[in-house]
Amino acid sequence: MPTKPWDRLWTGANLATMTDASLGVIRQGAIAATGGRIAWLGREAELPPSHEQMATDVVACGGAWLTPGLIDCHTHIVFAGDRSEDFRRRLHGESYGDIARTGGGIMSSVRATRAATNDELTTGAVARGRELCSWGVTTIEVKSGYGLDLDTELRMLDVAAGLSSHLPADISPTLLAAHALPPEYAGRREEYVDLVVDRILPAALEQGHATAIDVFCEDIAFTPPESRRILEAGIAQGLHGRLHADQLTDLGGGALAAAVGARSADHLEYLSRQGVDAMAEADVCAVLLPGAAYTLGADRRPPVVALRNSGVPIAIATDANPGSSPITHVGAVMNLACILFGLTPEESLLGWTSAAAKVLALDHDRGVLAPGMRADFALWNVRDVVELCYWVGASPLRSLVKDGEPVIPRVAAAGHFA
Amino acid sequence: MPTKPWDRLWTGANLATMTDASLGVIRQGAIAATGGRIAWLGREAELPPSHEQMATDVVACGGAWLTPGLIDCHTHIVFAGDRSEDFRRRLHGESYGDIARTGGGIMSSVRATRAATNDELTTGAVARGRELCSWGVTTIEVKSGYGLDLDTELRMLDVAAGLSSHLPADISPTLLAAHALPPEYAGRREEYVDLVVDRILPAALEQGHATAIDVFCEDIAFTPPESRRILEAGIAQGLHGRLHADQLTDLGGGALAAAVGARSADHLEYLSRQGVDAMAEADVCAVLLPGAAYTLGADRRPPVVALRNSGVPIAIATDANPGSSPITHVGAVMNLACILFGLTPEESLLGWTSAAAKVLALDHDRGVLAPGMRADFALWNVRDVVELCYWVGASPLRSLVKDGEPVIPRVAAAGHFA
Repeated sequence: MPTKPWDRLWTGANLATMTDASLGVIRQGAIAATGGRIAWLGREAELPPSHEQMATDVVACGGAWLTPGLIDCHTHIVFAGDRSEDFRRRLHGESYGDIARTGGGIMSSVRATRAATNDELTTGAVARGRELCSWGVTTIEVKSGYGLDLDTELRMLDVAAGLSSHLPADISPTLLAAHALPPEYAGRREEYVDLVVDRILPAALEQGHATAIDVFCEDIAFTPPESRRILEAGIAQGLHGRLHADQLTDLGGGALAAAVGARSADHLEYLSRQGVDAMAEADVCAVLLPGAAYTLGADRRPPVVALRNSGVPIAIATDANPGSSPITHVGAVMNLACILFGLTPEESLLGWTSAAAKVLALDHDRGVLAPGMRADFALWNVRDVVELCYWVGASPLRSLVKDGEPVIPRVAAAGHFA
Repeated sequence: MPTKPWDRLWTGANLATMTDASLGVIRQGAIAATGGRIAWLGREAELPPSHEQMATDVVACGGAWLTPGLIDCHTHIVFAGDRSEDFRRRLHGESYGDIARTGGGIMSSVRATRAATNDELTTGAVARGRELCSWGVTTIEVKSGYGLDLDTELRMLDVAAGLSSHLPADISPTLLAAHALPPEYAGRREEYVDLVVDRILPAALEQGHATAIDVFCEDIAFTPPESRRILEAGIAQGLHGRLHADQLTDLGGGALAAAVGARSADHLEYLSRQGVDAMAEADVCAVLLPGAAYTLGADRRPPVVALRNSGVPIAIATDANPGSSPITHVGAVMNLACILFGLTPEESLLGWTSAAAKVLALDHDRGVLAPGMRADFALWNVRDVVELCYWVGASPLRSLVKDGEPVIPRVAAAGHFA
């Protein structure tokens, strides 16, 4: 029997290909995959007459919407410990400083993460990753940064890389050893930066998991010169550059990301006009993280209009982490991007697909629906794809396809009443 | 064989009884039910030695937290049509007025609801109600108000009342015929108020479903004198009074609710100091709806500190509706109550239980765990009950018990990867 040209064909779907600002919609569309890649897509009416015989398997989508698998391009889902007590104390009126001084804050996550086994870290991260996948995510960036020592940073990257064997998602691990100054280096900032550049970075490169390097550039973390030194060292070794930039103050982080040739600058509530221009000039992506702005009660919004008008690609991500963005609900973050930051629903959706792929330097491979791209799809039980940003509730995911294979037949969010 | 004194006993649970401001926590507790009511609760160590023989069924909870079934005391989950296009247009910069004038806004929901069959209305409301129940909700208040004519208002109440046969929840239907002035009464406001008072209210009383009457008192809806007339007519006939009050402007809605003896005033972003005092004096509950404040980008917050200091019971609800609060994610609303309105996690949880029961005049029957109260429980896979307010993600519901019977064995939010 001759091999059929397509492994699988999906018919009766509305495709949001994400190839233009209007989402590249193809209504009553079909899409075919072979060898884990998109082989054909277009209007169902344009399928060859013999299309039913061309695929080994044909899936009728019943009018569902089909998007590229979503990409969460900024997460901290590997960590141990619990910050709900910090949350409680803050809402009872205690200051961040008091909470940090008495056992809470980021250092409580660092202590718990250092003390945790790889298995324990994996268990927690898999649970969080599953929530993302139940929202159509098929690619997750995962940062280190709760180790802040050689051993734990490498263990975090190892755990991150290993998540792909537990989840229907590819993982992009990022070295964020410069997330905070560990307390044992208090008063010895330069020595910690030396440790990151001279020991942790080379060891991470030898380990081979990390594809990017990131720094938290902020008054409470690393200065612009320190950030530059760390980023340049990583980028020189072939890693992609990322930067937590201009979140709480304007330190010129956007311009710094542009100067070193980073892929993205992230957060950006205090990004200046000059920063926007520098990012546009250097083709740096903006990664907006409305979950953190919301949770922290930020008094500033990123300059969305200026970014939009300058043509800077805008990605959106959960920033899932135990302190400033305890959120794994992708729909809530899509909605926050609209309500809190004023993005249009189309921009929010592009921010989870084509723009996010660019942040991770995977735009040659995913983030849009086009022939040759990876066959990672999410199918949604919605009447219009805009609904993903609109209603904050259970995931309307109908099915998830990774590398051409259905991996979640159906998320039965309410089906347990049957 | 002699009948055992308890139908069912849950052991190894941490109980949040909601009987005091610290949530009335009993760690390593147990709770027993008979005939759908709580027969015993306390520390496991205080159980009678023979307790294993005292119950027909014993459920080991493995350290899960157990709360009263949650109560969503302000919803509009019965409606037809789709407002995601309104959402899209608003984010593309169109004004509410323009959207309403060209087919959108609340009147689009009214047109669609009038045109829908009871079965269609039921299907949509059941889907939304299931999402609430997957978050531990066992009592739902459901308002009419998208009919605005005799027939459709009564049909909405009928659909609402019928939801209890599809959901593991009790329903409290509320007549909200005074939700907006229907366009066919433009320029004839008094005639519509006459219709509500003289025809719709009596018909609803005869129908027998509604337990409360509500009015939207606002510049864009009904004046304080109109609201008073409608509320007084309903309260005189034995309905509980509710009021959409002081949401967008200060019309003295809180004081009006107090003057007519309403159970609650809802929204309250513009509630005055005098309004707080009047509510406290008359024992009127505040129902805060952070989902609407968030979605509308409200520039004011309800006077939480004044309400707290005056001892006004504070309830929280989803306000689930297609326009101003398209949210069925209870955890997100619990979190919004903390982040946006500054409630403590404990206040947020009491707002879904004991305070919400008081709003619905069901506090003699539910909302706290105590002997004789209805055996409606939610069991949660959390290490601390505060986590319900803290992490915005999939529901951590482990099981739901209605009238002493397990109705959701387990919400497998991520279990579809098995």
